[in-house]
Amino acid sequence: MSVTKPIGFLASGVAAGIKENGNKDLAVVVNMGPQYSAAGVFTSNRFQAAPVQWSKLAVGDGLLQAVVLNSGGANACTGEAGYEDSIQCASWLAHHLQIDTEDVAVCSTGLIGVRLPMETMVNGIAQAVAALDSKGGPDAAEAIMTTDTHPKQAEYLAEDGWAIGGMAKGAGMLAPQLATMLVVLTTDVALDSEVLDRALRTATSLTFDRTDSDGCMSTNDTVLILASGASGVTPDEQEFTTALTQVCWSLARQLIGDAEGAEHDIEITVTSAATEDDALECARAVARSNLFKCAVFGKDPNWGRVLSSVGTTSAAFDPDKVDVLFNGVPVFLDGGLGEDRSKVPFEGREVRVEVRLHAGDQAATVWTNDLTYGYVKENAEYSS
Amino acid sequence: MSVTKPIGFLASGVAAGIKENGNKDLAVVVNMGPQYSAAGVFTSNRFQAAPVQWSKLAVGDGLLQAVVLNSGGANACTGEAGYEDSIQCASWLAHHLQIDTEDVAVCSTGLIGVRLPMETMVNGIAQAVAALDSKGGPDAAEAIMTTDTHPKQAEYLAEDGWAIGGMAKGAGMLAPQLATMLVVLTTDVALDSEVLDRALRTATSLTFDRTDSDGCMSTNDTVLILASGASGVTPDEQEFTTALTQVCWSLARQLIGDAEGAEHDIEITVTSAATEDDALECARAVARSNLFKCAVFGKDPNWGRVLSSVGTTSAAFDPDKVDVLFNGVPVFLDGGLGEDRSKVPFEGREVRVEVRLHAGDQAATVWTNDLTYGYVKENAEYSS
Repeated sequence: MSVTKPIGFLASGVAAGIKENGNKDLAVVVNMGPQYSAAGVFTSNRFQAAPVQWSKLAVGDGLLQAVVLNSGGANACTGEAGYEDSIQCASWLAHHLQIDTEDVAVCSTGLIGVRLPMETMVNGIAQAVAALDSKGGPDAAEAIMTTDTHPKQAEYLAEDGWAIGGMAKGAGMLAPQLATMLVVLTTDVALDSEVLDRALRTATSLTFDRTDSDGCMSTNDTVLILASGASGVTPDEQEFTTALTQVCWSLARQLIGDAEGAEHDIEITVTSAATEDDALECARAVARSNLFKCAVFGKDPNWGRVLSSVGTTSAAFDPDKVDVLFNGVPVFLDGGLGEDRSKVPFEGREVRVEVRLHAGDQAATVWTNDLTYGYVKENAEYSS
Repeated sequence: MSVTKPIGFLASGVAAGIKENGNKDLAVVVNMGPQYSAAGVFTSNRFQAAPVQWSKLAVGDGLLQAVVLNSGGANACTGEAGYEDSIQCASWLAHHLQIDTEDVAVCSTGLIGVRLPMETMVNGIAQAVAALDSKGGPDAAEAIMTTDTHPKQAEYLAEDGWAIGGMAKGAGMLAPQLATMLVVLTTDVALDSEVLDRALRTATSLTFDRTDSDGCMSTNDTVLILASGASGVTPDEQEFTTALTQVCWSLARQLIGDAEGAEHDIEITVTSAATEDDALECARAVARSNLFKCAVFGKDPNWGRVLSSVGTTSAAFDPDKVDVLFNGVPVFLDGGLGEDRSKVPFEGREVRVEVRLHAGDQAATVWTNDLTYGYVKENAEYSS
């Protein structure tokens, strides 16, 4: 499972004592080679946490041998001293593994504005190195959780003997742009970092970038991929990209399924758009509507709130020729009232909204959550 | 008070029976002249309600003699038949007043997708005409309420004997762009419609357009101004614009103060920006952050959520040189930790957030509300 599914990877997750509750809070993932190709995408937020700044530099040459991740503190907005802390963590892990500090990426998640407890980190890293195991993926996935209620893991096994594994965390501040949350992907294919980078950008743009739980972009979003080459297989780039997209999609769907306080997972699909960008703009506008998200919480197929959001976009459509469907029932049809709202089934956690623009043949889907008492409670009482 | 403060206006508000609860639901405002200059700004939502479509046409020649407004139904997304209903309402009022239908504007507010009860409307309009009074402003302001808990009214009295009056409604779907909610402004100055239009656009851009309670733009936003000329005074355009802005500001502040479920009114001011647009972009980004709005509900001066929103903008600033103040206390200073969060007083309903960009000398303020259990409850249970 998880990041240790592909051949050539060790991982661990330990309770170092960063979190006060004694839960696992420090993870290490190590690529044992023979290759060390890597790529990463990062938050486009201009307040970038120290570990993001460091990891961008570390992956800049297309090589990574290890990643150290911690929950319990985001090391964001901590200035020059915080940046030095991130490098120090990379350096400690590099020392244990007898590799270069520049080949170690660092990821942190938790409260913004809090420095890392460095004495705890140095001991925790030693503890995590001692625990490294070829079956350590699930422990690592558990150690990066914050308000997540369960670990998120995914894997893909190709018929010709190569694999992709992945783990993710994220339950709030969940609206990545160009990157997302903390995600580590591993694979044992033999592909160079340029191909990995292209595949990763395609996969994230179709999955994490279309995930918008609460409209808020994090300072720490990071997605890393490490390739060991240990399978000896070099798959077709297109085939690899499709598989990677599938793994990212599974992780993204798990993130939405565990979003803070959510009671519904909402798939917003905009079809018959003139362009994919138009479809995406409309779907994002609906996903950001608090009124729509409250209505779904109240099990109300409120097409008026869908339309009033679509109406704020510049997408090509004729307002008199738009349809809105909730769970397959056309409640607004051809610019007028459709079937009665009471016909919409609203039992499950998953809600599907389709908006037909009748302006072309392009489509896009964005996933979001409803807005609930639980979301307000969690984010009024928990600082992040 | 309200729209009958200036000389030359009659108004009324009656319970016509559109609302099931028996509250006032139909208002009429009449300009008795001698002049009939008028201007209007409307929602930029592309799904424009029937009354918006009609009123844009009616005010197109710079003349209006009356406005009929109803709550209890927005007449939005009701197609050609709904549009005919709006014209019919204008026609009925015009008939009673012996004026042209084209000089009557129509405003509706309430549920989207519901046709107006036309038999109730015809009787209600007759009833409202019979009730017209030079002190009828407060009744009119009451009749346009939906989820508002109290009427919103404002007035301005100039030393040289002219006045502005105004009324507004709006408590949700409250993020106007280029226009807003339902607002009727009256004045007895002698100014032509071109000057009124310029003054109105300036005033609304500085007030209603900087009000963003919940990020959701309505299909029915309308602001109308009617000038009777009855004071015989033609004030300086700048003086009039300043006074009008003051009245609009009072109404906008009242809207924020009565927003659905809100427990705090939040003033977000961005200072030392390179341009006013930069300041506005940053302030709007913070005002749209659900995490920030939940934190204020929880009385948490969460500067991390302010910064992560500012970080999504393209405004000019150096992330290492930004300050964040909550109610005057600099909790984040010069790119690093400032005073302890516990020093921020958090007793009142009003919360002031200041972000200093240190990139110039421009500033802008946006008003919003916190995100509360009450907001979720009202919008999960009430369709709009």
